[in-house]
Amino acid sequence: MPSADHIRAVFARYVDAVSRGDVEAVVALYAPDARVEDPVGSSPHVGAAAIRAFYAGSAGTVSLELEGHVRVAGREGAAAMIARTRGATPMIVETLDAMAFDDDGRITSMRAYWGPDGIRPAD
Amino acid sequence: MPSADHIRAVFARYVDAVSRGDVEAVVALYAPDARVEDPVGSSPHVGAAAIRAFYAGSAGTVSLELEGHVRVAGREGAAAMIARTRGATPMIVETLDAMAFDDDGRITSMRAYWGPDGIRPAD
Repeated sequence: MPSADHIRAVFARYVDAVSRGDVEAVVALYAPDARVEDPVGSSPHVGAAAIRAFYAGSAGTVSLELEGHVRVAGREGAAAMIARTRGATPMIVETLDAMAFDDDGRITSMRAYWGPDGIRPAD
Repeated sequence: MPSADHIRAVFARYVDAVSRGDVEAVVALYAPDARVEDPVGSSPHVGAAAIRAFYAGSAGTVSLELEGHVRVAGREGAAAMIARTRGATPMIVETLDAMAFDDDGRITSMRAYWGPDGIRPAD
């Protein structure tokens, strides 16, 4: 089972890679058959090709930071995050990502909790 | 579908009811066939009787507060929380609850993300 330290490190690498728009670094954190549901309730992206296409679609448009500590329970982790969009009208999106991991420490599932009423203009 | 406001209100009622040790108020927030996995990775408590027994076992021993805003995505919500245990050696447990809701606005699933390395002595 992946350690709590490993799971926390993956969350840190994830927010860094997303913020840098480094799609390959993001995809490398996922297992080949992983599932991304972003936002929760939407149709999931399954497998490396679909996940790559999903992140490529928003690469460079958002910076992401953790809000508070990552919570780790067994082979899963979750953390509140703040996303800031770049562009003419910067917005803040309050999100929260829940991830599950395989024995090799790769993400098998990511579910992002965010919605319209968690979005506001950036200061 | 339950509104975002409703989901946020249930989170507020949940932390209040748990903190007061009001088991029946907690159970009333759940659908009759709901599933509670606390912590994530443990054997779930399914159905009102099992859920009542689970909360009765810890009633009055912990106070719970939200850390940051509840995130809402469709019919699901998630929020980081701080639990403080009562007793001779008070502890702080960093947790995070993810909940799903039915059309009547009752909780159908609750998963609590917390683990050993998220526990520390209270100040």
